[in-house]
Amino acid sequence: MREKAIRVGLIGAGTIGRVHAMNIAGIREVELVAVADPVQLAANKIAAEVGIPNVFDDYQSLLKDERITCVLICSPPITHAMIVEEAANKGKHIFCEKPLALSLDEADKALASVEKAGVKLQVGYNRRFDPSFRRARELLQHGVIGNLHLVRITSRDPDIPNVEYLRTCGGLFFDTTSHDFDMMRYLTADEAEEIFAVGGELIDPKLRELGDIDTAVVLLRLRSGAFGIVENSRRAAYGYDQRVELFGSGGMIEVMNHLCDQTVLSNKDGRHLARNKWFFQERYRESFVNEIFSFFACIKEDKEPEVTGFDGRMAIAMAVAAKRSLIEHRPVSLTEVLGKVSKRGPE
Amino acid sequence: MREKAIRVGLIGAGTIGRVHAMNIAGIREVELVAVADPVQLAANKIAAEVGIPNVFDDYQSLLKDERITCVLICSPPITHAMIVEEAANKGKHIFCEKPLALSLDEADKALASVEKAGVKLQVGYNRRFDPSFRRARELLQHGVIGNLHLVRITSRDPDIPNVEYLRTCGGLFFDTTSHDFDMMRYLTADEAEEIFAVGGELIDPKLRELGDIDTAVVLLRLRSGAFGIVENSRRAAYGYDQRVELFGSGGMIEVMNHLCDQTVLSNKDGRHLARNKWFFQERYRESFVNEIFSFFACIKEDKEPEVTGFDGRMAIAMAVAAKRSLIEHRPVSLTEVLGKVSKRGPE
Amino acid sequence: MREKAIRVGLIGAGTIGRVHAMNIAGIREVELVAVADPVQLAANKIAAEVGIPNVFDDYQSLLKDERITCVLICSPPITHAMIVEEAANKGKHIFCEKPLALSLDEADKALASVEKAGVKLQVGYNRRFDPSFRRARELLQHGVIGNLHLVRITSRDPDIPNVEYLRTCGGLFFDTTSHDFDMMRYLTADEAEEIFAVGGELIDPKLRELGDIDTAVVLLRLRSGAFGIVENSRRAAYGYDQRVELFGSGGMIEVMNHLCDQTVLSNKDGRHLARNKWFFQERYRESFVNEIFSFFACIKEDKEPEVTGFDGRMAIAMAVAAKRSLIEHRPVSLTEVLGKVSKRGPE
Amino acid sequence: MREKAIRVGLIGAGTIGRVHAMNIAGIREVELVAVADPVQLAANKIAAEVGIPNVFDDYQSLLKDERITCVLICSPPITHAMIVEEAANKGKHIFCEKPLALSLDEADKALASVEKAGVKLQVGYNRRFDPSFRRARELLQHGVIGNLHLVRITSRDPDIPNVEYLRTCGGLFFDTTSHDFDMMRYLTADEAEEIFAVGGELIDPKLRELGDIDTAVVLLRLRSGAFGIVENSRRAAYGYDQRVELFGSGGMIEVMNHLCDQTVLSNKDGRHLARNKWFFQERYRESFVNEIFSFFACIKEDKEPEVTGFDGRMAIAMAVAAKRSLIEHRPVSLTEVLGKVSKRGPE
Repeated sequence: MREKAIRVGLIGAGTIGRVHAMNIAGIREVELVAVADPVQLAANKIAAEVGIPNVFDDYQSLLKDERITCVLICSPPITHAMIVEEAANKGKHIFCEKPLALSLDEADKALASVEKAGVKLQVGYNRRFDPSFRRARELLQHGVIGNLHLVRITSRDPDIPNVEYLRTCGGLFFDTTSHDFDMMRYLTADEAEEIFAVGGELIDPKLRELGDIDTAVVLLRLRSGAFGIVENSRRAAYGYDQRVELFGSGGMIEVMNHLCDQTVLSNKDGRHLARNKWFFQERYRESFVNEIFSFFACIKEDKEPEVTGFDGRMAIAMAVAAKRSLIEHRPVSLTEVLGKVSKRGPE
Repeated sequence: MREKAIRVGLIGAGTIGRVHAMNIAGIREVELVAVADPVQLAANKIAAEVGIPNVFDDYQSLLKDERITCVLICSPPITHAMIVEEAANKGKHIFCEKPLALSLDEADKALASVEKAGVKLQVGYNRRFDPSFRRARELLQHGVIGNLHLVRITSRDPDIPNVEYLRTCGGLFFDTTSHDFDMMRYLTADEAEEIFAVGGELIDPKLRELGDIDTAVVLLRLRSGAFGIVENSRRAAYGYDQRVELFGSGGMIEVMNHLCDQTVLSNKDGRHLARNKWFFQERYRESFVNEIFSFFACIKEDKEPEVTGFDGRMAIAMAVAAKRSLIEHRPVSLTEVLGKVSKRGPE
Repeated sequence: MREKAIRVGLIGAGTIGRVHAMNIAGIREVELVAVADPVQLAANKIAAEVGIPNVFDDYQSLLKDERITCVLICSPPITHAMIVEEAANKGKHIFCEKPLALSLDEADKALASVEKAGVKLQVGYNRRFDPSFRRARELLQHGVIGNLHLVRITSRDPDIPNVEYLRTCGGLFFDTTSHDFDMMRYLTADEAEEIFAVGGELIDPKLRELGDIDTAVVLLRLRSGAFGIVENSRRAAYGYDQRVELFGSGGMIEVMNHLCDQTVLSNKDGRHLARNKWFFQERYRESFVNEIFSFFACIKEDKEPEVTGFDGRMAIAMAVAAKRSLIEHRPVSLTEVLGKVSKRGPE
Repeated sequence: MREKAIRVGLIGAGTIGRVHAMNIAGIREVELVAVADPVQLAANKIAAEVGIPNVFDDYQSLLKDERITCVLICSPPITHAMIVEEAANKGKHIFCEKPLALSLDEADKALASVEKAGVKLQVGYNRRFDPSFRRARELLQHGVIGNLHLVRITSRDPDIPNVEYLRTCGGLFFDTTSHDFDMMRYLTADEAEEIFAVGGELIDPKLRELGDIDTAVVLLRLRSGAFGIVENSRRAAYGYDQRVELFGSGGMIEVMNHLCDQTVLSNKDGRHLARNKWFFQERYRESFVNEIFSFFACIKEDKEPEVTGFDGRMAIAMAVAAKRSLIEHRPVSLTEVLGKVSKRGPE
């Protein structure tokens, strides 16, 4: 067997780690050589399933393996920035799940290390690689609906995560909404200027004890003058709800939900279509594959990743602004959070 | 109150008679002055509801009223041709519900009287006046899907009529399919060359005693070489099913069903739309209004009606061919039925 | 001709006055006996079209006619409250187009007269009578989607009105959004507690000179804790956009747009459905008929109208709060506007 | 590297051979060890792409390799029966693309060899493994729509194949319709009793020289009394059209087309959805994966395949009947073709 070009270590053997591991198994020029997770059972299970030769119970050991040139960080969000920094210092290319960090300070420290090391960093905003969102963006950028007036993103999970997950995910705005903040930027190629957020514990009052919410509406004003709305819920009884609407002077672009199948039953009660795909593994199957292909292509061809550290940082800034707005019940400008709103692209 | 231009007599106070009576009530220059029905209860009821001053128990008395210049024939199909003939002989303009007759001989006799009297005759193929079918026809005729290869008409009633109706309607091909045969001609501006029909009593075996069927599939070859399919059923549990599909070298035009409302419920079982509109009164409300407006406009402006006696005759020929095909279980050419297939338009 | 039960005078011969006049023409027990409009051309035109015997150039003359027992106020919004007051003082039953007034003070004065006179007053929130919204409300109230978490109303006109209309309509929140504020209350049977509104002149900068906006997003918190969103635009290039989404703990109810027809064209570029119905006359044809029937039924049967003066007042309060929020760029509570938030129903 | 359980040889390096080769690459316990194709370029290309160590230019050499325990026959249809026979004689398990043969005699000879050798045989009716069709079948079999009255299968390719393909595919009924005949049997768990077929060269008159047609409608009567319709075209301008409709006494089940993405553009011309997926590789991606997994699972677990030799034989009988009906322009009963209509399942 010939030596494969890219030797990869997986940090974190949870749900999302497994998604990436399975997808990498289908890429001929990439080899998944190690997995690290403090939960040895999880790490061993993935190793057996996908065929990964080395299993570690701490990521530091994995990072020490010099044959590994690239890591996927799929550990809990509170550890992301720290591991990015250490991995960069070891000279590894990095794919880091979202969010990049839970504060701008952490993010900036991690990004400084990445820049210094000159390694690639891609943040896991997989939805950018979904064909429907991609086509919506293209249509908008080609002027098909004229000037943008309103973007609405409806983003609802099928069910509330377990307490362990909730404790380490950074809260709704850093976890779920983070995707939507990035999608807003991706679709519009614009930046938020101001954010007003409301939310509450409409599903489960116990979230209050965790200092979190399960339902939110975030209202944004973009630099162009267009408005943005993000609608979040931790529990949509009908499955994963992932819609986008772009309204402009010349028309509207919608991205509709994906249904489980294309069967329709008509009877005396009406016309019954299938349910939404249940969660991200089903709905975004294709985008996860595209995302990880794109990452490895960037390494091979020495190109800038399609989701940069700057993108990761901006989503954090938006989450910070949203959280402050929620607490202080007032519109919060991004300049307030960022000092001055930075120009697009790494500075 | 000024004398209205057109004074109308309604013959037949059943469901369809009532539909027309209600619609005429909304036209300012037309006055419904008499209704005739052997069932006095029915005639009186419509008269009270719509405000018709004269009620007869036989249509002959109505025809004798010289102030009436126009009749609507909404009696059972077995009486249509006879009444058309008598009304024409009295010089009345005629709107006759479909089918025009139950045999070509009867039709020809009636049409000869109409021609001799020089009165207007419009046959009640209301679906021609439906905006969706009309747009489908326009798109086809404008070449939007290139050459036509296949027309499919799905035409299912919500429920089987009562025995009285079944006995006098002329059977499935003269009753339900009659509309579809006309629609086939209307949409394509073409004529059937050959018909192969199958059918059975899949809903109610008692139809056999009436010499009728409740389910049919009719396969047609048009002169252009395109194929046609008509799918009929007397009972669609989900309500009136009225669809058309036109498939051609450059694409496809579909006319979809009309739902009762635009509400959608999403829950764990799927995505639930409203039921189809239940029957013709709901689904074709607009086409009935347009149809009767068009008829009176033809009288006023002395134009040829949009559905002619020739059209009525061709739908009968197709029904005759379909019935023969069903009985003899073989394709039947229209020439066999018509002598030679007549050219389009009155000869 | 027998004396009809209800003799009606129409005040205002514009677009909406004409809609009501046409619909009344189809009701047997109601007679439209007079129309008043300072623009005589408009009044004469409707009179000729519908057959109204008396035409006035001022509404006071119409109000003096003692045979008129009921008026429809379809004049510009700035005149509504004043005419309601005068009509009530003359003992006429009143159907008043929305909004009831442009301030709470005016509304309260008008409502006091109505109460004192003991006449019926119905405010023209016709959308309550639309079958789809009605069914959505019923499903919600029957608990089909559990507890409500979010209501979103998308409400976009096809095009910006002319300057004359814009000057007298009271601005976006009193004109367009007024319907949506009422719909929010109607669907949820709940009241707004707080409103945050943003908006701008994204379509036409000239609106700024009129002190108006053409685009708005209004974020509400209802007493139940649920959130509400209203999305408004004066110009949707694809026609009237009238959607509702109710999201709850057990599912989601949507009301989708109505398309012009049910034709679908499939070709190499995709699958093409018809455009939305263009504006309210087409989309809400049925609700206008139902609304006016309901109003006359309330007079005949001496029942409380389905849209009361209290409803009219609450929509004004919400518009006042929205406008204040827009100007002061902060969330505004309804108590701030109303003194204390009144209980539902007249006090 | 451990010895994999099943060592597979691929016969035929065309489009469909490549689909299977790619899918097998993702199955850990199966190894694709050889490919044979007289067109060496094609064989070498797949070998390089998927990583197949042995390449042959004739299938007999491949069959001689005793380490190969299983073959996939993806050569042109005219060679299927012969290769099945030889492979069975060599004791290989066989996955054979549809159709199994181009005549019943050939099929019977091949099936006798398979039976004698006791090897597994699965015929490539991949659509049985599509989730939508599978769910439609389950709903029907569970009585959700009561008794079946009509099945319609619309099956249109995006474009006409090249002449080389047309010459060796056995004609429309053995190539395209073959899938639909099998789908009819699969969905209904019933057998055809009689077939009436019409068709023509509406797309390309040159097909007549090949003795083939490009457009067909096949009307079937099933043993249950239900009717069946198959609509075929070699060219749907809007992409692969793969729909099913099951109409029964209690309702209707439809399987709709799959669109390329879920984007919708609304503008002044209407509402524009994406195009259908272009062809079988996109539309049936999932069913191909499921099909091949199922085949290898049958070998491993020594179970009967989900598509048997009997199924392959019945689709041939239906194609024979359809062709005879087309030529003789009359309904043809299956007994006429089969001697007596065999019971379901291998005899």
